Amino acid sequence: MKVTKFGGSSLANGTQLKKVLAIIKSDPERRFIVVSAPGKSHPLDIKVTDLLIDYANAFLAKQETTAIEATIISRFQAMCDELDLTLSMTTIKTEIYSLKKTPLVSSDRVMDLFKSSGENCHARLIAEFLTKNGVPATYVHPKDAGILVEDIPGDTVIKREAYHTIKHLKHHKDVVVIPGFFGVTSNDSICTFSRGGSDVTGSIIAAGINANLYENFTDVDAIYSANPNIIDNCAPITELTFREMRELSYAGFSVLHDEALIPAFHQNIPVVIKNTNNPDAPGTRISASRPLDTQSVIGIAADSGFTSIFLRKYLMNREFGFGFRILEILKEFGLQYEHMPSGIDDITIILRQNQLTPTSEQQLRDKLLTDLKLDEIKIEHDISMVAIVGEGMKNSIGVAAKATTALANEGINLEVINQGASELSILFAIREPYEEQATRALYQVFFD
Amino acid sequence: MKVTKFGGSSLANGTQLKKVLAIIKSDPERRFIVVSAPGKSHPLDIKVTDLLIDYANAFLAKQETTAIEATIISRFQAMCDELDLTLSMTTIKTEIYSLKKTPLVSSDRVMDLFKSSGENCHARLIAEFLTKNGVPATYVHPKDAGILVEDIPGDTVIKREAYHTIKHLKHHKDVVVIPGFFGVTSNDSICTFSRGGSDVTGSIIAAGINANLYENFTDVDAIYSANPNIIDNCAPITELTFREMRELSYAGFSVLHDEALIPAFHQNIPVVIKNTNNPDAPGTRISASRPLDTQSVIGIAADSGFTSIFLRKYLMNREFGFGFRILEILKEFGLQYEHMPSGIDDITIILRQNQLTPTSEQQLRDKLLTDLKLDEIKIEHDISMVAIVGEGMKNSIGVAAKATTALANEGINLEVINQGASELSILFAIREPYEEQATRALYQVFFD
Repeated sequence: MKVTKFGGSSLANGTQLKKVLAIIKSDPERRFIVVSAPGKSHPLDIKVTDLLIDYANAFLAKQETTAIEATIISRFQAMCDELDLTLSMTTIKTEIYSLKKTPLVSSDRVMDLFKSSGENCHARLIAEFLTKNGVPATYVHPKDAGILVEDIPGDTVIKREAYHTIKHLKHHKDVVVIPGFFGVTSNDSICTFSRGGSDVTGSIIAAGINANLYENFTDVDAIYSANPNIIDNCAPITELTFREMRELSYAGFSVLHDEALIPAFHQNIPVVIKNTNNPDAPGTRISASRPLDTQSVIGIAADSGFTSIFLRKYLMNREFGFGFRILEILKEFGLQYEHMPSGIDDITIILRQNQLTPTSEQQLRDKLLTDLKLDEIKIEHDISMVAIVGEGMKNSIGVAAKATTALANEGINLEVINQGASELSILFAIREPYEEQATRALYQVFFD
Repeated sequence: MKVTKFGGSSLANGTQLKKVLAIIKSDPERRFIVVSAPGKSHPLDIKVTDLLIDYANAFLAKQETTAIEATIISRFQAMCDELDLTLSMTTIKTEIYSLKKTPLVSSDRVMDLFKSSGENCHARLIAEFLTKNGVPATYVHPKDAGILVEDIPGDTVIKREAYHTIKHLKHHKDVVVIPGFFGVTSNDSICTFSRGGSDVTGSIIAAGINANLYENFTDVDAIYSANPNIIDNCAPITELTFREMRELSYAGFSVLHDEALIPAFHQNIPVVIKNTNNPDAPGTRISASRPLDTQSVIGIAADSGFTSIFLRKYLMNREFGFGFRILEILKEFGLQYEHMPSGIDDITIILRQNQLTPTSEQQLRDKLLTDLKLDEIKIEHDISMVAIVGEGMKNSIGVAAKATTALANEGINLEVINQGASELSILFAIREPYEEQATRALYQVFFD
């Protein structure tokens, strides 16, 4: 059994839905379909979810909503017309119109309810479409599917016990069509996952029914070994481990919702990223392990917008609990750090720049300087982190040499070098302007 | 004005004392002499401090002490005979004998008092010796010198206010001879610094009188750019910064007592390491800065006996305060860590192996695993840390490349790589058996 999730662009219009039909028909194992709301059907189009957010905001502001309702309905109507569907449109209209009758309890509850109806309506439409075209399909609401979630509007998480109910979905004879993106709380409120959360629903269903594959259909052929916007005809990655996928979670690898991998990872269900517009492309398979006969480095990821905070104190490494006190202060400032490489008497804290304002940065600087009685503190902005990643690195000597030589040849200074005992990745902190150059240089030595 | 400290081997017998006399005579700036207790005058000899520890233990155990007293006295007597000194011997005998009349208040007080008399007696003897040989000298007890310390027997530290008194030493006409290793508390108890603490006394005096140089005479020509026991005719380091000295503080660079540099560092007084047996050798000068026209790497240090604790948890880097909780647990176990390099979802903790017993290690493993809900924990023993150090690294690109290539060519796997933003050192964790090979390989690329 496979759980097959289709993203918004794969479901944006009738033409796309026909591709989806063909994909589902081509493999009888595809019995659990998780759908997003309709995405952009052309570059200037607006995603239905965004329209619903406007609708919700207008409603909350007690403004006129007729126009926006019409726009939303027209998106579904256009597909029904193109695909000659008659039944679901009535239900969809009723749902969209009835939204504005929602009691104004709390604005984020209202927002979640509105947002969720994009997926919900589309699931109904798609179930009808499949049935009408020789694939008997049943729409199943997340409540009936058993997607029981915590009461955290806009950013909910699944409850452990949910899986006991979800596994019963197996017994459905028909193909099951489940709206992604949201679940239902123990007191029947709708709560959505964070944006892009249909990926999460798919993964939850896959874990719940213990599928042998979770297929995630999107609009790219694969995950690439580097940022394809930087590297021309960048090599696709055919196989990847969950750990590698995580290490590559920097910019350029945001194909999948981060949290979407958790249920699949814990249940050890392979995930495959495929392209609705090119379903014959092998895509990228993400699983617990992969053959390591291939090269040591599988991907190069880079991300900018980091700040490095350098602390020096004479005899620091003799002071018990020094690192602890640093992290106490970071915690006090609500700061999350990424890395903390150290010398004997110095520590560098790498964190996301957007966590600091000039004011809070000044306060942090003063706090660290005085509380820790530092000899020196230096804060540098506009740092990029570049990571080379691969399970194979552990078994091959000289990867660091190859990488640092490539960067040295480009005259790129390494502010920080960081490799943990996993030997799964080596991270380099460099100045932002060199990020693309570094990516190209590393790509060349490891992939060309 | 220079403060000149002589170590135990430089003062082990009459022959050595004659060298010391020549050194003091050769430079009228050498007006503040800090002395250790007599060290080994031949390989099988016993240091006077060790004899005094035996004496103290016998006294505390209420055992017979006549023999050990005689042995101690004979060491001083031999020098007095050789150097034809008459005055101080009486005082020395009285002091050694009177030790056993110490009230048995607390054993560590007794221990400190006994230990301190090695330096104390020797200072008296040396003052007489200098005076008798044309260098008018006065013995000054640490109490009179103003070395006011905290009441921490065996591991005391100087009190801030002490420096106000110490500076008055300047006004002495004669050369001042001060016993190293101990100070006096506000209620007149003797407290010693940790072993080797005469270096600390010298540094304190240098800071107190604001000397323009702190000379530390020992039995090596210089600090070497790598462990001379591993590298044949290893290049000596002529100039070194305080920061570099600290980064090199791993094995093979333990020429100077770690804490000895603090007062000099804070008062910015240059320190020079010189050889009593070869005073014309330039030695090694340690100061705040040095000309960087020389090579990027100034030294290679290595130390064994580390353990690496590798932790992995899926989505670790999204968990706020994760590193903090790790350090909380280390703190709870009273563990001091050296480094903590990290990937996206993993952290490696490098710490000294001797802090853990098989039992405490198992407890730590369980605690980390359960409290942090880790996916994986791996503890590896017998790790060596190898560091390449140099202020010049910051301004020269490709040092990491050179080092990692050298290690790769030797087929040495890098368990961990760690370079902070100081770019003052790069640390590599490798398996212990490769330590010497790694040192040689790095020495070859950076020094041959």
